[in-house]
Amino acid sequence: MQHNPLAVSLGDPAGIGPEVIAKCWDNRSAFALPAFVAIGDPRSVAAVWDGPIELVDDPRQADAAFDHGLPIIQLNTPRSDVPGHPSVAGAHASLDALEIAVGLARSGSASAVVTGPVAKEQLYAIGFQHPGQTEFVAERCGVSPGNVVMMLAGPTLRTVPVTTHLRLSEVAANLSSALIESRGRAALRGLQRNFGIAEPRLAVSGLNPHSGEGGQLGREEIEIIEPAIAALAAEGWRVTGPHPADTMFHAAARANYDAALCMYHDQALIPIKAVHFEDAVNVTLGLPIVRTAPDHGTAFDIAGQDRADPRPMAAAIRMAVENAMLRAEAV
Amino acid sequence: MQHNPLAVSLGDPAGIGPEVIAKCWDNRSAFALPAFVAIGDPRSVAAVWDGPIELVDDPRQADAAFDHGLPIIQLNTPRSDVPGHPSVAGAHASLDALEIAVGLARSGSASAVVTGPVAKEQLYAIGFQHPGQTEFVAERCGVSPGNVVMMLAGPTLRTVPVTTHLRLSEVAANLSSALIESRGRAALRGLQRNFGIAEPRLAVSGLNPHSGEGGQLGREEIEIIEPAIAALAAEGWRVTGPHPADTMFHAAARANYDAALCMYHDQALIPIKAVHFEDAVNVTLGLPIVRTAPDHGTAFDIAGQDRADPRPMAAAIRMAVENAMLRAEAV
Repeated sequence: MQHNPLAVSLGDPAGIGPEVIAKCWDNRSAFALPAFVAIGDPRSVAAVWDGPIELVDDPRQADAAFDHGLPIIQLNTPRSDVPGHPSVAGAHASLDALEIAVGLARSGSASAVVTGPVAKEQLYAIGFQHPGQTEFVAERCGVSPGNVVMMLAGPTLRTVPVTTHLRLSEVAANLSSALIESRGRAALRGLQRNFGIAEPRLAVSGLNPHSGEGGQLGREEIEIIEPAIAALAAEGWRVTGPHPADTMFHAAARANYDAALCMYHDQALIPIKAVHFEDAVNVTLGLPIVRTAPDHGTAFDIAGQDRADPRPMAAAIRMAVENAMLRAEAV
Repeated sequence: MQHNPLAVSLGDPAGIGPEVIAKCWDNRSAFALPAFVAIGDPRSVAAVWDGPIELVDDPRQADAAFDHGLPIIQLNTPRSDVPGHPSVAGAHASLDALEIAVGLARSGSASAVVTGPVAKEQLYAIGFQHPGQTEFVAERCGVSPGNVVMMLAGPTLRTVPVTTHLRLSEVAANLSSALIESRGRAALRGLQRNFGIAEPRLAVSGLNPHSGEGGQLGREEIEIIEPAIAALAAEGWRVTGPHPADTMFHAAARANYDAALCMYHDQALIPIKAVHFEDAVNVTLGLPIVRTAPDHGTAFDIAGQDRADPRPMAAAIRMAVENAMLRAEAV
């Protein structure tokens, strides 16, 4: 099946986004990458990379251009290409790139969108109102941010946090059966749509040590998590738990489920990054388009030093095309 | 250097302790195990294992006996050897075995103690007053339980939880700079004494996502953890952090420290079990003796079925003898 290329937004031009995207093109054979088109300011790529750039107007030109250089759809933004030095101009550039990349995926000109890392503080300074790129993408797709869910996906483990950027002391009070159900359902549907798993298995973690030890170490498992599991099971989903979080993530345990639904940020992020630091991909589920991102930030401290590892971006690009193909086949 | 054998308590006779200890003797060459003597009721071993048993009176006889069979110091306890069926008699047997094993290590007749898994509920039923074996061992050694610390140690990662069996919602309120300092100091001294690391490096985790993101996602890092790190550093220790917990545990990060000091149970246990499920050892630091244990429970559900994996017990025995040798050399 023939697909349009992926659109990859460069992210903040002063971060490592341009460098890792260029390195992905350099290593396109070794990384087994499909044709993609970068969206952003070519000067931010040229500032950190000596390779050939192919300016294109449309993603569909990228297939032919990809053999000769890194295809870029050029945005007319103010110059903002000093690596390691974030700026207001750079924030505008990163937002424009994101907007165009999502638009291309929405229209079908691009088969999926991969987003390079942005600097939230800089975006807030120019009036960006969303907690992060995920919520922005959701809005542009006409989906309520509450109905999308972040999955961290690696070769042998996928995790989905029920709550994300909360203080640890506020996690318990923010859990509800309804929230767990809704995140669980989105995760299960995402496993079907994006990963082609017809009958996905979801393992739900407990909140407390030893999953509360029958109520001795906390009652959230009994009062909040178990009812959510029962509700999802009643809909016909294959859901197990609550499992003690510390014994869920070794290789033999991981083989028993397709995704782990975790109660808080570090419960989901510690195991995925311990096991798949170089190739964990952030996948947004619940969107009409495929969107992935590498699971790292702008890393301004190493930008422009040729030290950034392109493997997470390569994994994000590869997973985007795989997800897009599976979704296209399912249509 | 010649050492006395290790004393290994069988743990609950109805659990998997007798089986995994017997399997360790079976595989003593493959597991590279030194001579050890089991302490408990030989009938609980014979109930699950057909191999040769050598009854001895003193650990110092174990060296010679070890070539011919599993040396056991026999305790006169009521029969309690039905695998998978915990009983009051079994609780007495497990407590007696623990008491004798610790006594042998205290007297120097044994070079260290390795404790098999016990059933806390059964122990509580016979009047056991301690939260677990660790606190019991501490008391028998004349050390305040507050001054001992649990370390989970595997080949490429060691973690120490500052708090242990607390509900997640209660973790933040139970953290203090004094507690972090005291646990950190015990961990650092333990790395010196038990692991022979002259200038140990301790990495301290944050509590909140992204280590609080400069106060945006919680202030415990600034108000509680950073002062504790500063105090330890002022004493000359090599201590870093607070580090975001999700990026502390991949292979490259682990190479930067000798132990990670974690704020709560699952923050310490998720990564060690994800990475070292088969060979993570529970080491009690801060004692006058060396004490290790496999990081699993009685597993009554699989006891007597020849399904228990002896590798965690083998790792605990191996680490006990290594720690004991390092401590003896340092004296």
